[in-house]
Amino acid sequence: MRFVSFSTPSGDSFGLVRDNDVIDLASRLDVPSLKALIAADRLGEAAQFADAPADHSLDTIEFLPVIPDPTHLWCLAINYEDHIEEIKAVGIQREKPKKPALFARYPDTMMGHNAPILKPTVSNDVDWEVELAVIIGKGGRHISEADAMLHVAGYSIFNDVSIRDWQFHTRQIIPGKNFRSSGGLGPWMVTADEIPDPHNLRVQARVNGTTYQDSNTSYQIHRIPAFISYVSDILDLKPGDVLATGTPSGVGFSRKPPIFMKAGDVCECEVEGIGILSNPVVDE
Amino acid sequence: MRFVSFSTPSGDSFGLVRDNDVIDLASRLDVPSLKALIAADRLGEAAQFADAPADHSLDTIEFLPVIPDPTHLWCLAINYEDHIEEIKAVGIQREKPKKPALFARYPDTMMGHNAPILKPTVSNDVDWEVELAVIIGKGGRHISEADAMLHVAGYSIFNDVSIRDWQFHTRQIIPGKNFRSSGGLGPWMVTADEIPDPHNLRVQARVNGTTYQDSNTSYQIHRIPAFISYVSDILDLKPGDVLATGTPSGVGFSRKPPIFMKAGDVCECEVEGIGILSNPVVDE
Repeated sequence: MRFVSFSTPSGDSFGLVRDNDVIDLASRLDVPSLKALIAADRLGEAAQFADAPADHSLDTIEFLPVIPDPTHLWCLAINYEDHIEEIKAVGIQREKPKKPALFARYPDTMMGHNAPILKPTVSNDVDWEVELAVIIGKGGRHISEADAMLHVAGYSIFNDVSIRDWQFHTRQIIPGKNFRSSGGLGPWMVTADEIPDPHNLRVQARVNGTTYQDSNTSYQIHRIPAFISYVSDILDLKPGDVLATGTPSGVGFSRKPPIFMKAGDVCECEVEGIGILSNPVVDE
Repeated sequence: MRFVSFSTPSGDSFGLVRDNDVIDLASRLDVPSLKALIAADRLGEAAQFADAPADHSLDTIEFLPVIPDPTHLWCLAINYEDHIEEIKAVGIQREKPKKPALFARYPDTMMGHNAPILKPTVSNDVDWEVELAVIIGKGGRHISEADAMLHVAGYSIFNDVSIRDWQFHTRQIIPGKNFRSSGGLGPWMVTADEIPDPHNLRVQARVNGTTYQDSNTSYQIHRIPAFISYVSDILDLKPGDVLATGTPSGVGFSRKPPIFMKAGDVCECEVEGIGILSNPVVDE
């Protein structure tokens, strides 16, 4: 099943995605959000509405980040070897990290499918990063790698748009990773049962139709079970938490000359088995 | 005025602190939290209850982090030159950062005054860091340094307890800065009008009565206006946001031999004009 969060004139809602339309679940299940449905372990109840009359056309809803308000939005830097190589080529020496190179984003940096990537007034270095996103189902602490996949509710696509000059102000990359309307999450969540092997998915990023990233999650250095286990030793994982698993090579700033996005561009991130997350770039 | 957030058997509340007691404001002002009072720009209304009958003894309330749920808890690394020198002495080369060395903590890493610092099962390297905390009043974006202090509601004390081995797993210090119950915030907020110069406050940290840190906010590299302005260029500041301004020299891991905290220890962080934030250390 595919779940989507969206905004309507009468308030935020979420629903079940079919080919071309959406079944509203907030009203039918009396639950305010997808996060709340996940927390209540009630995703399965959506199945009963699979043949219900459509509530919305998929073309007309205003997509929200599929989880608009996760407690945590954990991200990994340098989690693909080819990405380490490409940044070395522009003078940034990074070793293959022995532990997950964890960083944090505040949830209010996110936007949904079709919503704009804001090119900030303070920078021109706006870069794309397609990533497989993991949505946590059951929370927990000190989760073993062996048990980790039992804590996955589903998968989505994350565009970890990075403001490169701000990312390199100091050793901490946090500034360049926390700009307003810079983290795309969507278009929807595909439940884990439909993605039998999340470590064998083609991932691609395109700008204005030109493919810049084209890799596969099989090349991840720290895999999802290691990521979940590591984070859960630090802070309790919560239902609806989002884990962005890092980006492969093909980003803009490591090109010669570097390529950055500007107003009017459209960035598409595609992950096999999930779909396409599309965001236009707009000046702040 | 001093404001405190606390927990009662009938729910969370907040109030005005007097010498030995607390006036409950949630009931009197019909506002659920100190953050909400700040957001409504209604702090001044507390003054009318300065002589009201006491609701709670200060000795018996269960302190919460003075803002339990800020949208953002922004922190600075290496913001005192003497701290840069002491970590160099143990082999960690850091230059004086040209920009604020910003990192992020999730708010659910925090605990209030008297609540335990958890020594994690996965580490023994639990270290103290006394810091002056700034509580944001009016939010905003692209705030100039000249206007920045107009956005300060008040000040508190932050103990940026750091799990040192996890802090140095990779270049990103986030893991060691986000453990559960590792960030003390309190005991209360002192309103900005009572702290005429936040850049001339003695800051001290003690463990079991022994003073380990004893410095002054005058030695900060990036001062509060620069911190506020920098962060507001990245992400919109919100009322109740907390900015932890970095720690001076005297931490435990740079000592020879290093000193770390263990269960049974009591850590006190004191900032002149604000008070003492005390937290016992307890095994997870």
